Amino acid sequence: MKFVVDQQVEDIEMPENLKLNTFLQEFHSNCPHPECSFGFYGFAFGQSPFPVPQLIQNTLIKNVEKGAYAPISGIPELRNAISKYNKYYFKMDVAPERIYVGPGTKELIFNLLEILHGTVILPTPAWLGYLPQIRFLKKNYHMLPTRANKKISPSDLRRLALRLQDRQKILILNNPNNPTGLLYDQLELEEIADVCREQNITVISDEIYALTTYDFSKFTSMGKIYPEGTFVTNGLSKSHAAGGYRLGYVIFPQHAADLKTQFKKILATEYTAVSTPIQHAAVAGFEISKEMDEYFVTTRNIHQIMGDYTYHALSAIDGVKATKPDATFYLLADFNAFATDLQKARISTSQKLSESLIVHPYHTAIVGGDSLVLERTDFSARIAYVDYDGASTYKNYLENKPQSNAEKLEFVKMNAPKVVAGIDMIADFFDKLKKDTLSNFDSKKSSMITSS
Amino acid sequence: MKFVVDQQVEDIEMPENLKLNTFLQEFHSNCPHPECSFGFYGFAFGQSPFPVPQLIQNTLIKNVEKGAYAPISGIPELRNAISKYNKYYFKMDVAPERIYVGPGTKELIFNLLEILHGTVILPTPAWLGYLPQIRFLKKNYHMLPTRANKKISPSDLRRLALRLQDRQKILILNNPNNPTGLLYDQLELEEIADVCREQNITVISDEIYALTTYDFSKFTSMGKIYPEGTFVTNGLSKSHAAGGYRLGYVIFPQHAADLKTQFKKILATEYTAVSTPIQHAAVAGFEISKEMDEYFVTTRNIHQIMGDYTYHALSAIDGVKATKPDATFYLLADFNAFATDLQKARISTSQKLSESLIVHPYHTAIVGGDSLVLERTDFSARIAYVDYDGASTYKNYLENKPQSNAEKLEFVKMNAPKVVAGIDMIADFFDKLKKDTLSNFDSKKSSMITSS
Repeated sequence: MKFVVDQQVEDIEMPENLKLNTFLQEFHSNCPHPECSFGFYGFAFGQSPFPVPQLIQNTLIKNVEKGAYAPISGIPELRNAISKYNKYYFKMDVAPERIYVGPGTKELIFNLLEILHGTVILPTPAWLGYLPQIRFLKKNYHMLPTRANKKISPSDLRRLALRLQDRQKILILNNPNNPTGLLYDQLELEEIADVCREQNITVISDEIYALTTYDFSKFTSMGKIYPEGTFVTNGLSKSHAAGGYRLGYVIFPQHAADLKTQFKKILATEYTAVSTPIQHAAVAGFEISKEMDEYFVTTRNIHQIMGDYTYHALSAIDGVKATKPDATFYLLADFNAFATDLQKARISTSQKLSESLIVHPYHTAIVGGDSLVLERTDFSARIAYVDYDGASTYKNYLENKPQSNAEKLEFVKMNAPKVVAGIDMIADFFDKLKKDTLSNFDSKKSSMITSS
Repeated sequence: MKFVVDQQVEDIEMPENLKLNTFLQEFHSNCPHPECSFGFYGFAFGQSPFPVPQLIQNTLIKNVEKGAYAPISGIPELRNAISKYNKYYFKMDVAPERIYVGPGTKELIFNLLEILHGTVILPTPAWLGYLPQIRFLKKNYHMLPTRANKKISPSDLRRLALRLQDRQKILILNNPNNPTGLLYDQLELEEIADVCREQNITVISDEIYALTTYDFSKFTSMGKIYPEGTFVTNGLSKSHAAGGYRLGYVIFPQHAADLKTQFKKILATEYTAVSTPIQHAAVAGFEISKEMDEYFVTTRNIHQIMGDYTYHALSAIDGVKATKPDATFYLLADFNAFATDLQKARISTSQKLSESLIVHPYHTAIVGGDSLVLERTDFSARIAYVDYDGASTYKNYLENKPQSNAEKLEFVKMNAPKVVAGIDMIADFFDKLKKDTLSNFDSKKSSMITSS
C-alpha cells in the first residue's frame, strides 16, 4: 500500500535533536584506532549533565500510584508552586490561573503558535526547534538577523514590523539565548518592549535557561517588562536538569481570558494533560527550598567555570571569535575568519565543517550554522560545554570550591578532560587546515616552479 | 492588548474531558440536601477505577533518576517489550522498528492525522476525541452512521468511499468500541478490510480497550487482518488503568518506511519524546509476566460483572435499549423511546437530558448523544460503569470470586452501591417523566372539561 503524506510534513526540516542523531549515525562510526575508544567529544547535544535533584526524584517516588488523568491546565499544587517560584526568583506576580503546564516547553510553544494568528519574527541565530514548528503550521515568518553583538536591534525590529501587514505579529525571544549564551539586560528588554508596544507585537519569551544565569541578579523576565503582551515559557529541562521528565509551563499575559479558553481546548484536543506522577514530582522542583536553591547556585557556578574556560580556550585559537556566555551551557563560536582556507579545502558549508570535525582524528561534534538558522555558508557553530560527568563534578565542586583562576582551570582539567581535549582538537583542526592550505599553496608554487 | 486567535481554534468543539468538566462545573453544585452529600453518580468519566499495577509503580520508583531525553521513537527496551506483548496477546509479529511511543494515544492519533493526507471517515457514535482533532487539522471528513446493531456496515462503507474523490481515505476504527462496548469479531473485520483494500482506505485502529475484552479469545486486531493498511494504537491508559501516566504507542503498517521518517520528524517537532521515567515504568506493563496477566484477567472479569449488571438493570427499565458490552467499561443506552415524553417536558436535546439528570434529586452524570457525535436530538447516552472503589473491589474479588449470578449481583451491590443507586435514579427519572406527562395530559383534559 502506498501512503500519501501531507506535503507540509515532507517539506519541513528535521529539528535539532533528530538532526544531530541522524548526523552522528551517518558520520560517526566506532573508530578502529584504539586511542579513539572514547567515542567523540560532545559539544553538540544541549543537555545539562547534572543529576535530577534528589528532592524531585524522591517526590516522584512518593507519587507513582497517581494513575488518574490530571486536570488539563495542570494540578493546582503545581500551578501554585510555579506562581510562587516566579515571585521568588523572577519577582513576578503571576496568578496560578495564568499558568498552563505542558509536556515540555517545546510543545507549549507549538500550541501557542497554533492558537496565535499572525506572522512570526524569528531572530537568528536561533535554536533549531522553532523553525520546523513555524513551517509545519504554515505560518508566515521573517528572520531577524541579530547585529554584530548577536543581539536583536530594536530599530531593526521596528523596521521589520513596519513592513509586515498582519494585525498580529509574534516575536520569539529566547533569553538567555541558545545558541549564544548571552543575556538581554533590563534596558535592552525595555527597548524591545517599547517597539513591541508601538508595533503591536506579541512576544513568546522562551526563558528555559533563566535560572542558569551566572550572575542571577542580572536576569529580568520579559514577562515583568511587558506583562500585557508576553507569553513566558520555562520548565524543568535545563535549570533542573530534567529534560527527560518532559514538563514545561507557560505564563499567559495579563487580561487574556478568552485566549486561555482557546488554549485549554487545544491542549485537551492534543494531549489531555501532562503525566500525573511527573506533575507531582515537579511541585518539589518549583517549591522554594534550600535544597533547590543550592542546586541552582551550584550548577550555574559550574556552568560558568566551564563556560569561561571554553570561551577563553576557543578565543585563544587565532582567528576564532566567541560570544562570552552570561548563562546557559553554550556559546557561539565564529570560524568565519577561516572561510577562505575552508573553501580551499572544499569545506564550503557549515554542514561540511561539522562533517570534517566529526571524522578521525578529530571526533568532535558541534552544531553548525545551518542548524542555527544561519546561512549555509556561515561558519559559526554552537559549542555546548557539558561533556563531563555531572554527578562527580557536582560533588567535587561542593567538596572544594575553586576560587582563584588557577583553581578553576585545575577544576576544569580534572573534571572535564573531554571539554579540554575537544577544544584542543578544534585548535588542531584549524591549525592543520591553515598549514595544509599553505603547503598546498607552497606545493602549487613549487610545482609551478618545477614545471616552468 | 487584544490577541487574534486562529479561526480554526475558535471553531472546534471542546473534547470530551474538557466538556464534561465544564458541564459539571456549570450544572452540578454541592447540593444543600444532606442525603446528597455523596456528590453525584458518575457514569460519565471514562477512567478505569483500578490502581496502577504494583509492578509498574515499582519500576517507576527504580527509574526516577532518568532525567535524560529519551530517543524520539521510544527507548529500545520499551519498543521491544511492546513487540513481544503484541506477539503474546494479539498474535501479531511486529518488529520494534514499526512501533512509536507517544504521550498518550490521543496525541499519536493527532500526529497520524497530521501526516496522513486525505479524507477521514468517522463511524458514529464515536468517542468525542477524534472530531476536534479532525476539525482543528482542517481535514475533510464524513460521518458513517452505524446500523441498528451499532456496528459499521461494510456496504455503507463501500458506498461512502465510492463517493469520495481523495487519493487516500482514512477510516477511524475503534475496536473494542467506546461508547458501545461492542467488539468487532474476526469475520466483521475481514469484511471491513475487504472494502478497505478495494477502496484504498487506510485504517487507524484505536484498540486502547483490547485487553479489557471479557472473553479475550474473541479479540482480533485489525493489524493482523489488514497489516498493510492499518495503524494500530494502544497504550497504558485503559487496560493498565494508568491514563494519568500518559503513554501510548502506534504500530505502523508493514512497508511504510518513508512514512516512518516523516512521522519521526513530526514527533521531534512537537514534543521530543515521552517522559523517560514513565517509559521505563511502561516496560514492566508490557513485558509478559504472571502478575500483569493476572491483573488483566481480574480487572476484565470485574468490568464484565459490572457491565452485565448495568446492561440488565438498564434494560429492565421499560423503554430503554442498551448495547450488551463485550469489552470496555461502557455501554450505549438508548432512551429514544421516551422522545415524545422528553419533548413534552421541554427536554428537546441530549444536552438538555444530561442537564435534567445532573440536577437534584437525580445527581446522575451521563455522556449524552451530542458528545458522542450523534444528532443533538438523539437521546442516546454513554454509561460508564466505573463509579466504585477499584482497589477494594479488586481485593474483594480475589478473596471471594463470585461465580453464580446471585453471587455476582451481591458483589455489585456490595462493591458498587453507587452504580446500583445511579441506575435506580435513571429509572426514577424516566418513571417520573412518564407520570408527569400523563398527569399533565390528565390535568389538561380535566381543565378542558372544566372550561367547556
